[in-house]
Amino acid sequence: MLRHVPAVSDPRVLVDAATRDDAAVFQVAPDRALVATVDFFTPIVDDPEAFGRIAAANALSDIYAMGARPLFALNLVAWPRDPDVLPLLGPVLAGAAALAREAGCLVLGGHSIDDPEPKFGMMVIGEARPEDIITNAGAQPGDRLVLTKPLGTGILATALKRDLLTESDLAEAVRWMTTLNAGGAEAMREVAAHVHAATDVTGFGLLGHLHSLLEASDVAATITADVPTMGGVYRAIVQGAVPGGTTRNLASAGAWTAFPDTLGDARRIVLADAQTSGGLLIAVGAEGLAILEGALASRNVPAHVIGSVHAGPPGHITVSESP
Amino acid sequence: MLRHVPAVSDPRVLVDAATRDDAAVFQVAPDRALVATVDFFTPIVDDPEAFGRIAAANALSDIYAMGARPLFALNLVAWPRDPDVLPLLGPVLAGAAALAREAGCLVLGGHSIDDPEPKFGMMVIGEARPEDIITNAGAQPGDRLVLTKPLGTGILATALKRDLLTESDLAEAVRWMTTLNAGGAEAMREVAAHVHAATDVTGFGLLGHLHSLLEASDVAATITADVPTMGGVYRAIVQGAVPGGTTRNLASAGAWTAFPDTLGDARRIVLADAQTSGGLLIAVGAEGLAILEGALASRNVPAHVIGSVHAGPPGHITVSESP
Repeated sequence: MLRHVPAVSDPRVLVDAATRDDAAVFQVAPDRALVATVDFFTPIVDDPEAFGRIAAANALSDIYAMGARPLFALNLVAWPRDPDVLPLLGPVLAGAAALAREAGCLVLGGHSIDDPEPKFGMMVIGEARPEDIITNAGAQPGDRLVLTKPLGTGILATALKRDLLTESDLAEAVRWMTTLNAGGAEAMREVAAHVHAATDVTGFGLLGHLHSLLEASDVAATITADVPTMGGVYRAIVQGAVPGGTTRNLASAGAWTAFPDTLGDARRIVLADAQTSGGLLIAVGAEGLAILEGALASRNVPAHVIGSVHAGPPGHITVSESP
Repeated sequence: MLRHVPAVSDPRVLVDAATRDDAAVFQVAPDRALVATVDFFTPIVDDPEAFGRIAAANALSDIYAMGARPLFALNLVAWPRDPDVLPLLGPVLAGAAALAREAGCLVLGGHSIDDPEPKFGMMVIGEARPEDIITNAGAQPGDRLVLTKPLGTGILATALKRDLLTESDLAEAVRWMTTLNAGGAEAMREVAAHVHAATDVTGFGLLGHLHSLLEASDVAATITADVPTMGGVYRAIVQGAVPGGTTRNLASAGAWTAFPDTLGDARRIVLADAQTSGGLLIAVGAEGLAILEGALASRNVPAHVIGSVHAGPPGHITVSESP
C-alpha cells in the first residue's frame, strides 16, 4: 500500500510512513509536535464492551509507542443496521470511552457507516515535545530489547472463535489487551537519555515490528526464542488455532530471520503472531537497562529482556534457542 | 450513536459531537486550534482514481466547513485481498494523494485492513485561529443561506449503479465531487465579519444539515424548493434511482420541515438527497451577502442564495415553492 502514497518532504513532518513508524509526527511549534494515528478492526472477542476497550487501547498504543501523550480521539464505526447487531454498538462505544478516559484522552465524536461486517477503531491525536519523540530509528549496537507484554493474542483470538479457549485464558488475554501502554510510555520518558528506539507489537508480530525497528536503525539483533507468552497459547497452536495473518507474518519473516534448525514450528509461530494491543518493544542502552526496568516496575509494567542489538545486515534477526 | 459517547467538558474542547458539527476542534495554544475529522465510505463511482479524489475532497470538506486549513491526513483503507480488486487500490490512493496535494495537505501514512467490501477515506487534521472557527451555532435571524454546489450526488450515484446515467452527467457529478471547498473556506475567512455559521452538505442531505445548523443556532429558516441540482437528477428520480439514505433522510426531515402540499415527491427527494463531497452551506448577514458573493465569485465558487434565517422553533425549516 505504501508505495502508492507519494513521499513527503516537508520540514514540519518529523515522522511519516517511510520508516513504518506507529504514528505520524507533525511539528506545529518549536516546542510541540502532534502525533496522529488511526486503527480499526473487526471484533476479536464476543463481549462488545471488552472489544471497545481493546480497540481503544490498541489505537492509543501507537501514541504511547512514540513516547507521546494522547490528547483527543474520534471514533470510527462501520456497523450493521441489523437490529440484532446494532445494539452491540453501545457497549463498544462505552468500553472505548472508558479506556480513553483512563488514558486522559477526550473522545470528541466520530464517523459511522453501515457495514455488513462490524468494525470499530479510533483515530487518536497526541502531543510531545519534538525532542521527546521516540521512533523506530535510533537503536544502537549494544542496546537491549525490552518487551512489556507477553505474546499470543492472535492465536488466542483464533482459538476463541473455534471455541477452544478456557474462560481464564480468555480473561487473561483480555486483561493484557485492555492494559494501556501508558505506563511504558511514562517510563520511556523518565529514562529518555537511554531509550533509543521503540515501537509497539501489533499486526506484523514481534518479528515484523522488530524488523522495521532494526531496518530503520540500520542494525541487526539477536533475540531468544524463549519469549513470554500468554496462557493457553501453545495448546491453541497444537489445536491448529493459527490466524492467517500470523502465517503470512511468519512467511515474510523468513526473508530476514535466521531460526535455529532445531526450533519447532510452534515457537516460530509465537514469534510471528499478529498481536492486537500488544506491548511496547524498547531498545535501551545496556547502561540504562536497570533504570528502565526500575521505571517500568514502579508502574507495574513487566520488562522482558528478549535480546540485544548489534551491527549486521539492517533488519536482520537471529533467533537463539537459549535465553 | 452519539448518545453512547459521553459528553466532554474541557476548556480545550471548542467544538465536540454535541452540536453535530463537521469536525472536532481542540485548542492547543491561545492562538491555535486543531480541527479533526474522519470520513470513509464505499466506492460511489467505478473509476478508482476518481473515487480516491472524491473521498479526499469529502474528508477535507469537514475542515473547510469549519473555516480551517488542512495540515495533514492519514489514509483509511478497508480493501479486499482479492487479486481482481486489490490492484484498484493504487489508483484510489493516487487520486486521494493528488487532491490532498491540491489542498496543500500532506498525506503521512494510514491504516489498512482486509475487508470483503472496499472502503476508503481519510482522517484529516487542520488548524485555525480559535476566533476564526465557524460552527453550526451562530446563525442569526435575517441571515441569508448560501449553498456553493448543486445537489444530487446521492441520486446520481444510485443511477450510475443501475446504469441509468449518461457519461456527461456522470462527468459533471464527478467534477463537483472532486472540487475542494477550499475556495469557499477562503471566502468565508475573507468575509469573517459577516459569516455567522456554516456546514457542508453531506450524508444527511440539505434538510438534515440545515436542521443541525438551525438547531445549534436556536433559529428557524425558510428555503426555496427551487434549489440548484446537477444534470440528470430529476430524470434519475423518475427512473426510481433514490438511495436508501436519501429516503431515510426525507422521512426524518418530516419532523422539522413544512413542505407546501403542492410540492411533488421529486423535489422533496432532492432536498433530502444524501450528498458526498457536497457544497458549503453558509449563513451570512444580509448586509454581507454581496461581499460574500463577490468573494466566492472571485474564486469561481457558485453562490446560490436558497433562503433565509428567522426566529422560530429551533431547527424548523419551511420550504417555499417560489424562490
